Amino acid sequence: MTDLDRKLVDAVTRVVAARRDDAVRLLQALVRVPSTTGEEGAVQEKVEHAFRGRGLEVDVWEATAAEVEPYRDHVGQQRTYENRPNVAGRLRGRGGGRSLLLNAHTDTVAPGEPGAWGHDPLGGELVGDTLYGRGSCDMKGGLVTHLAALDALEAAGVELAGDVTVTATVGEENGGLGALSTVLRGYRADAALITEPTRLRLVPAQGGSLVFRLTVPGRSAHAAVRDEGVSALEKFVPLFEALRGLERERNASLRHPLYDHLKNKVPINIGVARAGNWASTVPEGLVAEGRAGLIPGEEVEPFKRQVTERLLAVADGDPWLRENPPILEWFGGQFAPSEVPTDAPICEAVKRAHVLATGEEPIVEGVSYGADMRLFIRFGETPCVMYGAGDVRDAHAPDEHISIPDLVTATKTVALLIADWCGVAR
Amino acid sequence: MTDLDRKLVDAVTRVVAARRDDAVRLLQALVRVPSTTGEEGAVQEKVEHAFRGRGLEVDVWEATAAEVEPYRDHVGQQRTYENRPNVAGRLRGRGGGRSLLLNAHTDTVAPGEPGAWGHDPLGGELVGDTLYGRGSCDMKGGLVTHLAALDALEAAGVELAGDVTVTATVGEENGGLGALSTVLRGYRADAALITEPTRLRLVPAQGGSLVFRLTVPGRSAHAAVRDEGVSALEKFVPLFEALRGLERERNASLRHPLYDHLKNKVPINIGVARAGNWASTVPEGLVAEGRAGLIPGEEVEPFKRQVTERLLAVADGDPWLRENPPILEWFGGQFAPSEVPTDAPICEAVKRAHVLATGEEPIVEGVSYGADMRLFIRFGETPCVMYGAGDVRDAHAPDEHISIPDLVTATKTVALLIADWCGVAR
Repeated sequence: MTDLDRKLVDAVTRVVAARRDDAVRLLQALVRVPSTTGEEGAVQEKVEHAFRGRGLEVDVWEATAAEVEPYRDHVGQQRTYENRPNVAGRLRGRGGGRSLLLNAHTDTVAPGEPGAWGHDPLGGELVGDTLYGRGSCDMKGGLVTHLAALDALEAAGVELAGDVTVTATVGEENGGLGALSTVLRGYRADAALITEPTRLRLVPAQGGSLVFRLTVPGRSAHAAVRDEGVSALEKFVPLFEALRGLERERNASLRHPLYDHLKNKVPINIGVARAGNWASTVPEGLVAEGRAGLIPGEEVEPFKRQVTERLLAVADGDPWLRENPPILEWFGGQFAPSEVPTDAPICEAVKRAHVLATGEEPIVEGVSYGADMRLFIRFGETPCVMYGAGDVRDAHAPDEHISIPDLVTATKTVALLIADWCGVAR
Repeated sequence: MTDLDRKLVDAVTRVVAARRDDAVRLLQALVRVPSTTGEEGAVQEKVEHAFRGRGLEVDVWEATAAEVEPYRDHVGQQRTYENRPNVAGRLRGRGGGRSLLLNAHTDTVAPGEPGAWGHDPLGGELVGDTLYGRGSCDMKGGLVTHLAALDALEAAGVELAGDVTVTATVGEENGGLGALSTVLRGYRADAALITEPTRLRLVPAQGGSLVFRLTVPGRSAHAAVRDEGVSALEKFVPLFEALRGLERERNASLRHPLYDHLKNKVPINIGVARAGNWASTVPEGLVAEGRAGLIPGEEVEPFKRQVTERLLAVADGDPWLRENPPILEWFGGQFAPSEVPTDAPICEAVKRAHVLATGEEPIVEGVSYGADMRLFIRFGETPCVMYGAGDVRDAHAPDEHISIPDLVTATKTVALLIADWCGVAR
């Protein structure tokens, strides 16, 4: 480590620690504004205010149905495009450095059953070192990381050579509307960082995630003569087992160095099943909705064909299903898997920054969930990785929370990454 | 056949045929009044009017929560007891004959999806010899049979020795509220006939029908890490299979001469299954509702224990279910199985009447569905059988209908049964 490095690390460490309460307050303010996917207007107003307050060059715009239409398979169908602004804020460097794009999404999943929470989902309650609330971890905390890092650099008197752009985007949870629109608006950089909750691990690879609906036909009959009907539930069971079998086979045959640590690299989940309406009637239909995972290196279309063939093979062995085949539809945002090489410059830079911030090498791994990374890589030609505080396991759950010490560590890493990547002008 | 018999048969045949259109018009009028279980008030007003018009001694009353409370396991929970009158009409004989109780329920199941019907469910449309509409077959047609039979006897100048009482009751479809209340009000007789749609077969035995709810716990997790959760749907599958296995075993081991012709004597149907809320979340619960059949000779409680034990055996073999056992509840009306001997006087009498009406011996068989028979036998000590026009397969289905020629045949049988059973005074 050079003296300059050491002085910078010391300064950033000091300033980030000193400003910890500001970061907590900003995160609380953001958590307290509900922003379920599709209803991001109010929180983005706060974000715009925060960007302007920091003197960033601000750009606010909404995605349009027309621009998104060719990409609908990727980002899914939208209920609305209105009052869902994206916000970008640019800090221009003095020239000669690399550019960096920082991204966070401000939409959240719904709070769900309030009774399942011990804390107010919109309270932003701080208990000891833990801040609770929907979006605290996924990923308003990540947005705070970016702003706190820029604040720290400014307070440390650092001026950058390359440009930094912070983008706060909408619609990640159902496919990535905002990130796509950001790319289509021309936002690109030499690299991008998304501060999704990765437990301070470097994630250069994201899994694919395809949502599907399976409709299984039956034939109703009174329960007293149930053999005169066909139970859609009964017909669903072997299809369900076939998907389990496919998952097992794919886990056994697919290989990827960043995924082999996972027990289930390519999960296929049935999350919803609905059959019948009356206890005494043979159910004449079943609708199941599920989600299938892919690992980087896989293509979406061959996988879809594989699922279809597997289900049709089951149907072919059953006289009823042969005549009344199940219907498979893919709907919602289709997250293709994506990755950058683990020795890409942005990976090396995040590793260095993490070492400077923590004194330890980061764990590097792929994740099995889908994210916006793929859109920056695929359509923005911008190498993108994820690194942030918080655990994705807490993200969509009751009592979602984030550790403030981890948020502080992430902020230090991001600040040092910015300085390293963009270069220090003075 | 004596000359008297022949004269009576000829007279009844002639009069029933001559009054066919009156019967059709009465059935149309009844079908056109909606009377889903719980909402029988309006149709019972029409019934009372029809009874009074025939000079019967009329009794109209409502069941009360208090009288039914000790029998709640049998007739199930009621949403309401109000505006659900039962109607009884007595025709006193001149003395010296046996008494007969005729029963029909006037509640119907809901019409269901109108789009599934080719005819108006409340239209009472006559197409050729077929009358369409909810309740036409189950069992406003049966009530018309009783009244048309009494009309025919009157027109034929027959006066009876024994009393005949027609009872039009509510709430059969969810457990038999009206039939129970009829018995509790003191209506008993030397025998009873219910004109449920039996395809003109003599049915001296009805199956039991127990409705249950099975709740299977899981643990939610994001689909990307689905192995960290427990799919309630996955845990349900072996429970479902266990119920199928139990059904197979019971079919193989249970014997009853009136049921051995059935492919499935004791069906166990799962009619409803609901699991999860979101494609990308492991479903944390599944609720299934089903209906299990029993044959006469079986007791309800040992069967319930058998189901519980079977499910708990599956749970015991699964680490998750052992700690988080599925919950089994029995709800709604619990129809115990019931029967009278096939050589009981009422059976012999129905057989004779059917032979007189049709020239053929009737088929005698048990049915696998539950009905009000059991309440008259069990709590009214009145031997009871079923015999009527129409097919139960059409009963709860779209385009429910009844054949008018069959209704005419049933009417002849019932008229001849009344004359035979109660005795002709002159």
